[in-house]
Amino acid sequence: MAPSKPGFHSPASWAVFCLLLWTFGEGGKLLVVPIDGSHWLSMRPVVERLRQRGHDLVVVAPQTNLRIRPSGLYTLKTYSVSYTREYVEAEFRQMGHRSFAPQPFLEKLAKIANFTTMFLDSCKRLLADRELIQYLEESRFDAVFMDPFFPCGQIVAEHLSLPSVYFVRGLPCSLDSQATLCPSPPSYIPRFSTRLTDRMSFLQRLGNLVASLSSSLACSFLYSPYDPLIREFLRREATVPELLSRAALWLLKYDFVFEFPRPLMPNMVLVGGTGCTRENKLSREFEAIVNASGEHGIVVFSLGSMVSEIPMKKAMEIADALGTVPQTVLWRYTGPTPPNLPQNVKLVKWLPQNDLLAHPKTRAFITHGGSHGIYEGICNAVPMVLMPLFGDQMDNAKRVESRGAGLTLNILEMTSQDISTALRAVINDKKYKENIQRLSDLHLDRPIHPLDLAVHWVEFVMRHKGAPHLRPAAHDLNWVQYHSLDVLGFLLLVLLLSLFISFKCCLCCCRRFCGKKGRTKKAAKSKTH
Amino acid sequence: MAPSKPGFHSPASWAVFCLLLWTFGEGGKLLVVPIDGSHWLSMRPVVERLRQRGHDLVVVAPQTNLRIRPSGLYTLKTYSVSYTREYVEAEFRQMGHRSFAPQPFLEKLAKIANFTTMFLDSCKRLLADRELIQYLEESRFDAVFMDPFFPCGQIVAEHLSLPSVYFVRGLPCSLDSQATLCPSPPSYIPRFSTRLTDRMSFLQRLGNLVASLSSSLACSFLYSPYDPLIREFLRREATVPELLSRAALWLLKYDFVFEFPRPLMPNMVLVGGTGCTRENKLSREFEAIVNASGEHGIVVFSLGSMVSEIPMKKAMEIADALGTVPQTVLWRYTGPTPPNLPQNVKLVKWLPQNDLLAHPKTRAFITHGGSHGIYEGICNAVPMVLMPLFGDQMDNAKRVESRGAGLTLNILEMTSQDISTALRAVINDKKYKENIQRLSDLHLDRPIHPLDLAVHWVEFVMRHKGAPHLRPAAHDLNWVQYHSLDVLGFLLLVLLLSLFISFKCCLCCCRRFCGKKGRTKKAAKSKTH
Repeated sequence: MAPSKPGFHSPASWAVFCLLLWTFGEGGKLLVVPIDGSHWLSMRPVVERLRQRGHDLVVVAPQTNLRIRPSGLYTLKTYSVSYTREYVEAEFRQMGHRSFAPQPFLEKLAKIANFTTMFLDSCKRLLADRELIQYLEESRFDAVFMDPFFPCGQIVAEHLSLPSVYFVRGLPCSLDSQATLCPSPPSYIPRFSTRLTDRMSFLQRLGNLVASLSSSLACSFLYSPYDPLIREFLRREATVPELLSRAALWLLKYDFVFEFPRPLMPNMVLVGGTGCTRENKLSREFEAIVNASGEHGIVVFSLGSMVSEIPMKKAMEIADALGTVPQTVLWRYTGPTPPNLPQNVKLVKWLPQNDLLAHPKTRAFITHGGSHGIYEGICNAVPMVLMPLFGDQMDNAKRVESRGAGLTLNILEMTSQDISTALRAVINDKKYKENIQRLSDLHLDRPIHPLDLAVHWVEFVMRHKGAPHLRPAAHDLNWVQYHSLDVLGFLLLVLLLSLFISFKCCLCCCRRFCGKKGRTKKAAKSKTH
Repeated sequence: MAPSKPGFHSPASWAVFCLLLWTFGEGGKLLVVPIDGSHWLSMRPVVERLRQRGHDLVVVAPQTNLRIRPSGLYTLKTYSVSYTREYVEAEFRQMGHRSFAPQPFLEKLAKIANFTTMFLDSCKRLLADRELIQYLEESRFDAVFMDPFFPCGQIVAEHLSLPSVYFVRGLPCSLDSQATLCPSPPSYIPRFSTRLTDRMSFLQRLGNLVASLSSSLACSFLYSPYDPLIREFLRREATVPELLSRAALWLLKYDFVFEFPRPLMPNMVLVGGTGCTRENKLSREFEAIVNASGEHGIVVFSLGSMVSEIPMKKAMEIADALGTVPQTVLWRYTGPTPPNLPQNVKLVKWLPQNDLLAHPKTRAFITHGGSHGIYEGICNAVPMVLMPLFGDQMDNAKRVESRGAGLTLNILEMTSQDISTALRAVINDKKYKENIQRLSDLHLDRPIHPLDLAVHWVEFVMRHKGAPHLRPAAHDLNWVQYHSLDVLGFLLLVLLLSLFISFKCCLCCCRRFCGKKGRTKKAAKSKTH
């Protein structure tokens, strides 16, 4: 059931492609609006598989981007933006470097604001690109497939009156729950960036509730700049949550072997692990390194696609620690070589992460804790040492650790000794391997591969022009109605009125009875007198 | 993807069976605890498919039952009960007859009590059957597959310490939501037997909330008699909702083309339409009738497996109405033939409902609105005339009607004219066919057949000895904690205390300031004097 590797490098592949086209009839036309960076890396396999299924794909992306390259698989339509490639690269480099030093809250906020402004600017430029918008209007797409992390794709979908399918792990400040009206009790569903698990003490639940209540403030900070853009482009008033609530389907990069179990809505489909394949062979270069590692095997070390170099002091500490294990360590690292680099560590500019993790000689995975990498670790049952840097990585690390499948290090405080101890523990203590193996067995035991499931649901929305039968009627209720507050208020009023009337009646009866008694007594008294 | 018809009537079937066994390795051992009647009819295909997959199945049922027959596919283990087959048949016959006359509330309640007592007695007898219980204890099952409509299966599963998989459409008084901790806001999720849709007026929402609040009373009436049984057999205190909350997985006979969209929990899997097959050919007898119907085609009429005869007066009214359409009507009916039976109506003791509905000549389906039949109607895109009799049938009929795929008749008030009008409408007004066709297209467009999905998840629980990763942590919270009432109370207390302290501080400052002013004034006054 594992998906085959896409690409048309041979006549045989073309034959398969044509056969697929023949089998599934004429393909549809799909607009793809991705988010650059690691988000695109996890979305690309779905896009490629959709192309294999015979659909015509148009990918819209800013001219300045890091990962979205032209391809024979789709038509890439770009629009100019105000920032340069150097600026974006420098921002990411700085983000990596800054993660290794303590940052004041305001500085963190400023960094987020930088990215937000960049995406907002990108969105403004896209919507202002008359030629591109006209092309999209004339293209007669069946649906829009997008990453809704920033809402530009949905603004375009609304403008084109097209149904949309989202591909996302989650949105900041629980915006996904808000937009889907999915219940999300803060008593057992930890909020973003709280580093909590689903089992919380009283104080943790208090913290989680406060985080939940304050998230609307964060949301307004992040998304309210889009309100005037929506007003201007769509010529109507709508907030970002309102807009996102119109999605036909949410493909969630989720699996409950990793996420904490929580309620779902009918238009949410879980597709965690789309990148999980086990069929690619290693290149000769990597195969040689792995084979040379002997009985001890290898350790795969990568801090993700966006962070490839770190401060020298930290790099040297890490290098020191890596020297203490007998395994060969393959470290994806593009910075200057640390002078103390031990012999068992090989620095590489890029590594085939999933294929290396799939190798039976791989003993451990040192990762920043991006969800994509973690799913690859789970897919291949490799215990992890987690060095979370930013975003959801701290929460992800907590999830893996709470399952006993890895150990988390604090990037700011970790010493060479800490790294070494953690790494040796996950390699030598069997419980980590057993736990990740259990998670892997559960993750891989599914009726259909998540990639095929994702493709099915995108095609479903294309075929049926949406999925209105999965949209709960709750969307037509306001907050008061949804929580039945008007009905409860009415019942309370009726209850109080009944009590009041009963009380009045009793009082009246009492008075009459007492009055009668009094009068009788008086009459009796007067008679006796 | 449609499932193949099970059964081993030829050497070829056996060869396929052996091949399956070889393909999927050695099968497991599964205990099946069904509920008799129509419930078993929808569960049986899953049981048969599980056998085809090579599992060893033991079905436990009361000796006196209507539908659970011995079979080469499973070992049937029965236990004696205090009631006779005649009693059960008479109860169902009466239930059918009574549905056609107005029933006082107390009489309805007494009827439900009769059934409840029957199932309770059956459960008592099962748990008291030492020989059978010992056999089950020694059988080393991997899991229990059950219909949880009555909780006897779960008591047995608890006793045997086995994970359980439920196969159910829903439970009375929202017990399924209660047991799974699945949020179910009464503002848009209509309660059982309210005949409401998901779009309600203020008064309807009020009624739904009252129904929701009063359902716990109904639950206690239905299920509290099991409490002493649980105490006695499991030697510990547990209520039925507590017991049901321990299910590993809920296979829900649900599809949102029919049900109103609502939240779900991770351990709920939707398998509505397991009986939907389109590959069986009609027998020669039925094929001849259908072919003889000419261009007008046929109408399929059945009031379900449990009601096969009705009061003569009603039967004559119906017969009258059926004579007004040019179609041939195939009516499943075992009672005395109505004297006015028109020529176009054929009475049959049994009919292959799904195969007839699948025939392109079928124009309409007159049904009591059992969910099994409705899914067959949707599967084959046949518009319906619904004559709901009892249980969830009124709600089901409302669902179909709200989708514009059928018309509902009130069994107590309908005249011959009403039936004729409704039947001609669904046959001749194209919108009914278009709507049911749309529902059918959505229902059939799925990545995996519900029967295969159901089988996958039963096997999943068997393989992994449960599915604890799908169990939300909410089960470890009490009601106050789940709703964060303790945390909110604490926050309120802190807020009030802060306000009180601030007020006191202000008061103190004011006094000191005013006092000082007063003293200064006094001092100034005394100085001037």
